[in-house]
Amino acid sequence: MKAVIIISGGMDSTAALYKACRDYDAVEAISFDYGSKHNHKEIPFAKYHCDKLGIKHQVVNLEFMNKLFKSDLLKSGGNIPEGHYEQEKMKSTVVPFRNGIMLAIACGYAESIDADKVIIGSHVGDHAIYPDCRTEFNKAINEAMKLGTYKNVQLEAPFEKLRKEDIAKMGNELGIDFSQTWSCYKGGELHCGKCGTCVERKEAFKLAGLEDKTQYEN
Amino acid sequence: MKAVIIISGGMDSTAALYKACRDYDAVEAISFDYGSKHNHKEIPFAKYHCDKLGIKHQVVNLEFMNKLFKSDLLKSGGNIPEGHYEQEKMKSTVVPFRNGIMLAIACGYAESIDADKVIIGSHVGDHAIYPDCRTEFNKAINEAMKLGTYKNVQLEAPFEKLRKEDIAKMGNELGIDFSQTWSCYKGGELHCGKCGTCVERKEAFKLAGLEDKTQYEN
Repeated sequence: MKAVIIISGGMDSTAALYKACRDYDAVEAISFDYGSKHNHKEIPFAKYHCDKLGIKHQVVNLEFMNKLFKSDLLKSGGNIPEGHYEQEKMKSTVVPFRNGIMLAIACGYAESIDADKVIIGSHVGDHAIYPDCRTEFNKAINEAMKLGTYKNVQLEAPFEKLRKEDIAKMGNELGIDFSQTWSCYKGGELHCGKCGTCVERKEAFKLAGLEDKTQYEN
Repeated sequence: MKAVIIISGGMDSTAALYKACRDYDAVEAISFDYGSKHNHKEIPFAKYHCDKLGIKHQVVNLEFMNKLFKSDLLKSGGNIPEGHYEQEKMKSTVVPFRNGIMLAIACGYAESIDADKVIIGSHVGDHAIYPDCRTEFNKAINEAMKLGTYKNVQLEAPFEKLRKEDIAKMGNELGIDFSQTWSCYKGGELHCGKCGTCVERKEAFKLAGLEDKTQYEN
């Protein structure tokens, strides 16, 4: 079985990559530069892990999203809010239908290279504010992908029912050096430690009982 | 109600544009340059009609599809086959999951500008070889769009059950000058008259009992 995996360079998709390399005969990876404040920090980590695993890695430019779409995660948007990842105010960082777009492109690429599956690393913690990370969305887009391709490409969301701390544990068992991943939405020199995804990252290591080797600003 | 319409510059999406301008309070249009042999011929016609109707028109660059995807419709692909649009050999011109990708991007844009619907002009004639034009695909992607957005963006495919000649008739009644649209997949100076989409175009005008003002090569 051959799979295309969507990889951001964050903890979840990196863990999904290592898991896919263990479970599939062939894997290709795809990253998206959609003009977020942190794409330039995370994509090099995606490349680092793909290179390490000998996986072919494509970076697709979706810069138009920065121009046309409304989100504080984008360079064109406002400041990144600070607080817990699942809080209501974090909604300003949602990039409209971003997972839908990434999955659709990965699906077309999968059909082009005769792959059976598209893998995405979204997890339970994403469900609160990201509508296109939820199980019912995954089910519907999987149906669209199957029906819309000759290969009947299918979605695999292996972490759909896991929490981030479970992913951290699994990744640790798979030998991943998580210091070589990026979460911070602000995209500064170091992880800020205060934005939603930094708070979630810290919490995941703590709950998993793992050392957090991330260098935070404070 | 506000809608985002996907417009290629061909007959069907142009007719859908004029219909949408009649039926909706507000309409914005979006075209995609995905590196096909005929994008440079059709997109200016999309722009022409949007300008004429006073509709905001965006062109989204998806040039990566030409590089990564496999299809004879793309500049990177082989020659365009000649014959009837619904023939088996036309499958080489299918761009994997193209409608899925265009709909996903239009959906994200719709959510960004607070639009309720995304309109696409696919019709019965597309069903034979394009899996992502069929009713069951439309139903699944509509579900994914609704579930994946806060606005519950919905798909409208007004020509889903119409044949191209019905669209030609309707467009004629809406006052469309179809000589200002482009179909030919080869993207040459004039319509070739022999490729699948030229054959389908000729047939549509004939069956609709309308004069075909297209200049064909032969």
